[in-house]
Amino acid sequence: MGRWAPGAAQRLPQAAMELFAERGFEATTVAEIADRAGVTERTFFRYFADKREVLFAGQEQFASAFIDAIDAAPDGAALADLVAAAAAAGGAVLQQARGREFARARHAVIAANEQLQERELLKLAKLAAAVAERLKARGVTAVAAQLGGDLTVSVFSDAFNRWIAPGETRDLVALQRESLAALGELAAGVTQPLKARRA
Amino acid sequence: MGRWAPGAAQRLPQAAMELFAERGFEATTVAEIADRAGVTERTFFRYFADKREVLFAGQEQFASAFIDAIDAAPDGAALADLVAAAAAAGGAVLQQARGREFARARHAVIAANEQLQERELLKLAKLAAAVAERLKARGVTAVAAQLGGDLTVSVFSDAFNRWIAPGETRDLVALQRESLAALGELAAGVTQPLKARRA
Repeated sequence: MGRWAPGAAQRLPQAAMELFAERGFEATTVAEIADRAGVTERTFFRYFADKREVLFAGQEQFASAFIDAIDAAPDGAALADLVAAAAAAGGAVLQQARGREFARARHAVIAANEQLQERELLKLAKLAAAVAERLKARGVTAVAAQLGGDLTVSVFSDAFNRWIAPGETRDLVALQRESLAALGELAAGVTQPLKARRA
Repeated sequence: MGRWAPGAAQRLPQAAMELFAERGFEATTVAEIADRAGVTERTFFRYFADKREVLFAGQEQFASAFIDAIDAAPDGAALADLVAAAAAAGGAVLQQARGREFARARHAVIAANEQLQERELLKLAKLAAAVAERLKARGVTAVAAQLGGDLTVSVFSDAFNRWIAPGETRDLVALQRESLAALGELAAGVTQPLKARRA
């Protein structure tokens, strides 16, 4: 196969995820991924530095969705609105990119490997810091911006974990709204007695 | 030196942190840490599996402080109160354990090494999950409990990062209250125009 491999950028992650599910992440080689996708190893390395990168591709686009939504919000937007807009934009991009089945397969691979889990957490921590920076640039105080960055990522990832749960069919952005509603409830200091809830 | 090494559990982390600061984490050996603490390598290994463990010792005690505070809260406590109580208890334990200078030194070592950063994030993610579990056991809904677990850790770690900043002298628990206040403000959907805040 020559240098020109139409669709390789799309087929390689799909092929990798199939092989990771079949054989496990460690046991899968780049040669096997390239073969399954019908391209050469050389083509693989034009797109990804290694097999781990297949799992973490598209991060810039994903992070930009959060940041761009904050920048695009109207001038008088409340901090809560900025958090909601950023999480909604990030969730929408992720949902559209490869869909729920791909996300489930990717999550299963990452959950089975502590190093990949740690890498995923570092990615999310960097996203939280980037969101916090942008909130500060919009005039939010440092303390609120730091918490706002963390919260945006929590709202996203808590909803994401429900979105990929077996049998779940609801939209990711709808699930994020549910998390945001829980946040409102939490901060309002709901005092419904716990005994009543347990009943 | 014999089997009995009084104070070794206290001296070893201190010696390790000094050496990590002087030579870097990678360049420091267990033999050097033991030597600096005045104990044998054998004694080191009675307390820690490896030099990385010196940085992550005391985790169970730290996590228990969060969990125990949730269990100890009165029956009608609001979710917001549970989050505040857990964060305050964890912050107090950390502050009393080794103090700010040790925390600063430890943080500098971790910040300089991506693998240690990832390990630290995994530790905090597990803490968030443990807090969420305990909130659920108290009757909090799954969605609110997940966010509550994340938030507890965010309040703790955002305040922690300010606590160890150069020149900061305020109490960690007081800084956590500042984060909790920002959270309340955020969730209330404050609509103070950003233009006014920038001025």
